[in-house]
Amino acid sequence: MIPIVAIVGKSNSGKTTLIEKLIPELTKRGYRVATIKHHTHALEIDTPGKDSWRHKQAGAHTTFISTPHALGMVHSVDKDMTPDEIRDRFIDDADLVLAEGFKMLSVPKVEVFRSSVHVEPLSAGDENLLAIASDSELDIGAPCCGLDDSEKLVDIIEQQVINVTGPDIIVRVDGVRIPLKPFIHDFMRNALQGMLRALKDCDDAKQVEITLR
Amino acid sequence: MIPIVAIVGKSNSGKTTLIEKLIPELTKRGYRVATIKHHTHALEIDTPGKDSWRHKQAGAHTTFISTPHALGMVHSVDKDMTPDEIRDRFIDDADLVLAEGFKMLSVPKVEVFRSSVHVEPLSAGDENLLAIASDSELDIGAPCCGLDDSEKLVDIIEQQVINVTGPDIIVRVDGVRIPLKPFIHDFMRNALQGMLRALKDCDDAKQVEITLR
Repeated sequence: MIPIVAIVGKSNSGKTTLIEKLIPELTKRGYRVATIKHHTHALEIDTPGKDSWRHKQAGAHTTFISTPHALGMVHSVDKDMTPDEIRDRFIDDADLVLAEGFKMLSVPKVEVFRSSVHVEPLSAGDENLLAIASDSELDIGAPCCGLDDSEKLVDIIEQQVINVTGPDIIVRVDGVRIPLKPFIHDFMRNALQGMLRALKDCDDAKQVEITLR
Repeated sequence: MIPIVAIVGKSNSGKTTLIEKLIPELTKRGYRVATIKHHTHALEIDTPGKDSWRHKQAGAHTTFISTPHALGMVHSVDKDMTPDEIRDRFIDDADLVLAEGFKMLSVPKVEVFRSSVHVEPLSAGDENLLAIASDSELDIGAPCCGLDDSEKLVDIIEQQVINVTGPDIIVRVDGVRIPLKPFIHDFMRNALQGMLRALKDCDDAKQVEITLR
């Protein structure tokens, strides 16, 4: 399962700025990063009058724009998707997801705190807090790094989040992940591995997806 | 497998306009539509200075913007993804994909042809041509409908594309679909259906995805 780290902090604390420093450091170490940002206002991801905008206006549930360098998507939802829902549905080729905001999420977190802007951090006592990036020394039960210390922060993320292996079989029914008891999990994994051994091109697979419709 | 229909035609023939008519007719009949449009120029799907744009600039491989009504994505690619690659990777909750353009694609096609703009259609003799939507009567080996006759066009799409069942088990290894011989296909399907019968909440499943990492 691709891990999610939330970069949290009060308004104007510098979350995006920290993410801009973490991504190059993670990329330098060979990790592929996906990011998720929440907005409450309408998506300014498409331009009125453009063909793809017209598709969406006409009622397309999802619209893609394919270019040689990037694929753009606007996907209709009934309510905000959470970062783990987005990860489970759309991300399968990243090593780490950085979610900006989402302080209520129960995932490992890094808080950005600037004493020049706010009186106190918001994550004191949060057991998910991995580290705090701050312009001052703080003692709130997690390592404190400087606002520019992306190396140390990525060291912590690497040790505590990336290098921890997750479950190796995931079953989703109509998009909803089904919890598997350890016995069932191991039985299914072993049976599937046996089946796949009979197929070509599966020897070095990092990920196999099987879909029944 | 979710079917793809390409809406083709020469430049300025009215492809987007036809798609704007087909989507509401398909939606009225209960189908959920995804669309794909190709662009050669840079993606104008994100706004310089916005947080999500800054994530992408910093090197994020994929960036999502989550809002209550839509999820936006900008996903890095090395080359244009084809509609079937986009479908296989990102679309699992649509009944039909309409691809605007992509005339070289080997999928069922509807051509838009306006005799007031062009001398001749481009799909004469194309065995994938389902129908032609035109301002004039044409005889090029496929039914000819009016430019506004979305009902008749959707009748044809429904009969020849949507109501044709595809394979019911799909195996992807590191994102690449593996072809299955009929015996293997049926063996895996039956074995998996047996396994899944032991799990809760799988009885009425329309789609089951199993991932091994």
